[in-house]
This record gives sequence, structure tokens and C-alpha cells, in this order.
Amino acid sequence: RIKASGLKLRFCTNETQATRENFVKKLQGMGFDINVSEVTAPAPAACRILKERGLRPHLLVHDDLVPEFAEVDKTNPNCVVLGDAAESFTYANLNEAFRVLIGMEKPVLISLGRGRYYKETDGLKLDVGAYMKALEYACDVQAEVVGKPAKRFFESALAEMGVPPEQAIMIGDDIVNDVGGAQRCGMRALQVRTGKYRSVHTLHSQTSPQEQI
Amino acid sequence: RIKASGLKLRFCTNETQATRENFVKKLQGMGFDINVSEVTAPAPAACRILKERGLRPHLLVHDDLVPEFAEVDKTNPNCVVLGDAAESFTYANLNEAFRVLIGMEKPVLISLGRGRYYKETDGLKLDVGAYMKALEYACDVQAEVVGKPAKRFFESALAEMGVPPEQAIMIGDDIVNDVGGAQRCGMRALQVRTGKYRSVHTLHSQTSPQEQI
Repeated sequence: RIKASGLKLRFCTNETQATRENFVKKLQGMGFDINVSEVTAPAPAACRILKERGLRPHLLVHDDLVPEFAEVDKTNPNCVVLGDAAESFTYANLNEAFRVLIGMEKPVLISLGRGRYYKETDGLKLDVGAYMKALEYACDVQAEVVGKPAKRFFESALAEMGVPPEQAIMIGDDIVNDVGGAQRCGMRALQVRTGKYRSVHTLHSQTSPQEQI
Repeated sequence: RIKASGLKLRFCTNETQATRENFVKKLQGMGFDINVSEVTAPAPAACRILKERGLRPHLLVHDDLVPEFAEVDKTNPNCVVLGDAAESFTYANLNEAFRVLIGMEKPVLISLGRGRYYKETDGLKLDVGAYMKALEYACDVQAEVVGKPAKRFFESALAEMGVPPEQAIMIGDDIVNDVGGAQRCGMRALQVRTGKYRSVHTLHSQTSPQEQI
């Protein structure tokens, strides 16, 4: 309906369990009219940062996301890139990422999002933000977050559309990542009451959406 | 040498990978003159708290620690007790503890320590504090820490010896848990430069020991 209305549209996702290609295929399979060029996602944003700053990552990301980093030099790592690794969040992999970080003179941790949790068909799951906090605490560092709710991430999406923030509205289900992030960027935000939504979070949060539907 | 000098001595440990009995057996095997009644440890302290407050824990602790909670009612949990679960820090177990917590109207998280990491023969490992931070963030709660560096924990040990804080000195290798915790309790503290010790942490820390040896 948004596309039919003629409004400009961009999909801002913190999806880090799949390449953009596979993410789009999945949504197309569900009947969505979407293609790769309409998607703003954390992994390609991280790759640009790595390249700009000469960083070589140790990856703790989902197996299916690894192809997004195919072009990146990963030898002799000087940073850790953390995504929602899901089943790859093993005790051994977490300790390994920790050892790489703590071994650096000045640890650099790049996190593909800071979500708390999300819902899957078999229940709620801890999201990348929880593991980010674990590594931040253990290494006494602050992660650089790529993806929602980072201001830079929303600004990229706006620039790609050529729309100023005050003429854009963000639609999402996450009070922090979607609503809060977009509002800090000067956009309005609308919260949908989908699976992850719980009324208690709106009450507890310091962020209020312009509207809930 | 401390025992021979006639000074009162108590072992304050955040050991949560074994019962006190097994912890003492291990140290005795290394030649230490130590017995269970000289040990102040987090699990029995947590059991007292659970009983006082009518709390029924979901346990995410090391398999070998479970016997310390044998007497505790664990049906229909209304809190989560987190210890250094080591290999039991699986993706599935972390998600399960998270789901129990987030399902509570007012989540109660009790953490047996807040250590960042420790060293084993095969390298550095994330300690319970890192996983505590992950669950705190995901559930937007603050854990109640039992064990070092909690003031109450040091006070218990002092009371058991019948010694006021200003007449006691804490000896440990951890700048936060040992040195900082003891100092906040009014004790002096001495930091040993053992395996975990790294000079950079003393520089970065806001805590300074009275002496390092």
C-alpha cells in the first residue's frame, strides 16, 4: 500500500543472520515486493567502516552472514565484529572473541546492532546487544554500533532516498532500535504491536512513539 | 605463613564451579591447610537470601555447584540464580534463563559474583559478570550480586572472624572484586601479581591497592 501510494520507501533492517540477497529472497517468498537495492543493513555498513579505517576483523557473526565480509582482510585481526551469531554464540566462540579483544592494546568492538531480544517461532531469543554488553563489560570498552538505533544508519537511509528527516516516518516494532533511533535523527516514528511488542516496555521506556498501530 | 603467625584467616572465594567441599578438597590436594568452615563462598550466601525472601530459583550455574542448592525449592521459579556455568553457558541455556526472567512481572536476577574474566591453563575465560551484564541488558534489570565485591559478603567474612574492617587486610589478584570490594568495606587491600594480573588494568582502574606484591 505504501508503494502504491507513491511514497518513497526504504527497508532498514538489523538483520545479521543472512546476506541481503538471502534476506530479500526470504521476504520475496512471503510475497513482499522488495529488492536488494532498497535495503539498508548493518553488514555492508560495517564493511565500509572496516575499509575506511584499515581494520581487519575477527568475526563473531552468523555463518550465513560471512559472505558479506568476503572482500575484507581478516588476517591478524585488530578488531572484533559482532553480529547475531545465534547458534554460533557458543561458550568457546565467545571466549575466543573475548581473547582477541582483550589482547589488543586498544580493543575495538564493532557491533551490528544493539537489540535486546527478538521473537522466533520457538520463543524469545537474546539479541546481539546482550552479547555486546558481555564483551564490553569484560574488556572495559564501548562498542561502536552499526545499524539501528545509530543515527548514522538512519541518515544513510535518508540520504539514499534523498528525503530530509522531518519528511520521513519510521515504522517498526522496537521501541529503542526503531522508534528511539529514528526520533533522535529528527524523524517521526510509528510503533506496530507485533510479536515482540509488549505494552510494559512502552511504559518502562523513556521513548514514546508518535503513534502505535 | 599467615596461619603460623597466629593471625586470623578466612578464605573469601567467588568460586562457583564447585561445592565448598570439592573446592577445599582441591586446595588440600595442592597442599593447602584449609577446611570448609574457613571458607566464605557465594552459593551458601545465595541460599540464605533465597530462603529469607521465599525465592525459588531457576539455576544457570555450573553442574558441580548444583548440590549447594539441594535444599532449595526450584519449582515454578520466581528468580534466576546465575553462576559461572562455564560449558553450561550454551546458547540454549542462556536463552532459557532469559525467557524465565523476562516472563516475570518484576525480574529478579541474583548473580554469584561479577568478575569480568579469569585465567585457566588453556587461556582467559569470560566470568559470570559478563553473562550477568547480558541478562541485565536484555531484561532491563539490575542483578543483585552475592559474593565479592559486595560489601555484605566481606562483612559476613569479617563477622565470622570477629574482626573489624580496619584491622583486616584483603589479599587478592582482582582489582575490582578483591581490592575494590574490600576497600569499600573499610579494609586495606593488597594485590598479588598472579596470572590474571595485568598492569594495564591498574592504570585503567579507578581503584588502587595499598600495595602490590
